[in-house]
Amino acid sequence: MTENPSENPAQNLITAAILVIGDEILSGRTKDKNIGYIADYCANIAIDLKEVRIVPDEEDEIINALNALRARYTYVFTTGGIGPTHDDITAESVAKAFGVSIDEDPRAIALMLERHKPEDLNAARRRMARIPAGADLILNPISKAPGFRIGNVMVMAGVPMVMQAMLDNVGPTLETGVKMLSATIEAGGLPEGIYGTPLGEIAARHPSLSIGSYPSFKDGKFANQIVVRGRDNAAVQAGLAEVREMLQKLTPDSYTT
Amino acid sequence: MTENPSENPAQNLITAAILVIGDEILSGRTKDKNIGYIADYCANIAIDLKEVRIVPDEEDEIINALNALRARYTYVFTTGGIGPTHDDITAESVAKAFGVSIDEDPRAIALMLERHKPEDLNAARRRMARIPAGADLILNPISKAPGFRIGNVMVMAGVPMVMQAMLDNVGPTLETGVKMLSATIEAGGLPEGIYGTPLGEIAARHPSLSIGSYPSFKDGKFANQIVVRGRDNAAVQAGLAEVREMLQKLTPDSYTT
Repeated sequence: MTENPSENPAQNLITAAILVIGDEILSGRTKDKNIGYIADYCANIAIDLKEVRIVPDEEDEIINALNALRARYTYVFTTGGIGPTHDDITAESVAKAFGVSIDEDPRAIALMLERHKPEDLNAARRRMARIPAGADLILNPISKAPGFRIGNVMVMAGVPMVMQAMLDNVGPTLETGVKMLSATIEAGGLPEGIYGTPLGEIAARHPSLSIGSYPSFKDGKFANQIVVRGRDNAAVQAGLAEVREMLQKLTPDSYTT
Repeated sequence: MTENPSENPAQNLITAAILVIGDEILSGRTKDKNIGYIADYCANIAIDLKEVRIVPDEEDEIINALNALRARYTYVFTTGGIGPTHDDITAESVAKAFGVSIDEDPRAIALMLERHKPEDLNAARRRMARIPAGADLILNPISKAPGFRIGNVMVMAGVPMVMQAMLDNVGPTLETGVKMLSATIEAGGLPEGIYGTPLGEIAARHPSLSIGSYPSFKDGKFANQIVVRGRDNAAVQAGLAEVREMLQKLTPDSYTT
């Protein structure tokens, strides 16, 4: 059971960050449901989510965080702050971050007219049609007011159902990486403290793998899972086999894979 | 109904950030439950949560994020990465961020011996007793291995039940601010697009208040809430009255507070 690091396709790593924008998340009033969803979505299309930030509805905070993230990762997904009220300043802030103008976009107005009568497109609603110059629209089948993509940044709604619909629309346009393979081994009642040292030795022997141990606490007991992740199937299988062997040695009588 | 800005107690603002550390959150495998909990906790003790970051179990990422956050906010709460396995590198990384040494702490060992027999304190478990020099321990009544506080940074577990117990222990030692008062008005079926402009005008007239509009999508309809937040009760009440009056004018027949 050997591993040939030269066979690990380390090229074609596509990375991403999420920027959650909203006072309501930081105040605790709203519990974020988008981070976990986008994390799963990225994992499924082989994009490595590397960082998340949550910032308030403050222009400087949005600009600084967005510029830090978009310089560093292949893609940035933002959620929140693109509604019709005064505290929705994401689009304006993104335009400033990119140094481009922002104006009412006829394409966005046309989409919104699919839902609203012309006389109902008041000043507040027209705010939602303000799109930075050069951006592509991201369709919103639920409430029509679109998100947009500018450069490597996808600007999406904060309401989970709308965000998910936007992600479904923009997702297929993204470049994806080599899929990260993941295998989970139940360590059962075996405490982390028992297998921590040998597991670390296995991880050190397999630098191409990401091996994690994740405790959870349920019904008064810790129940641990070991996850082996990597892009090369042979390497993942090799690591898995060593973890299984290690666990079996530690609990020869009770442990089964 | 006037507002005297000089009466707004803007002093004594205590701020905080959360640093979530863990590959498992970014991969989507584990859904974070600590951010919302700590956000609520901070709101309840009048600490302003201003930023959240989620980073992987990588030393440079942890150090850079922690140093950025601890320089900027009164307090930083970290979660995750203090278990007994090789991917638990939070304590070592925090020590490096502070430029202090880290070693096995007799106080931590004593606590862990309340749960484990001496012969069961193997190398992996002893990793959990490694505490940066100068740190105070944060007690963990559930599984004993402690968190710690160093400077303005509270280092806590990632397992929610353990994190919550640690927060209960360290929370009462924190300096708190002037409590942020919050009042919510149901905008009912009135769409944001209808009240967006007048709500923005009210917000502009009350710079000491944070006025937000939060749509949610349920059973095929948007249901909106308007939240008025501020530290001065008279200012919050004045803002609330204007929002109510504005909503009543927009829906004179159907709207009731």
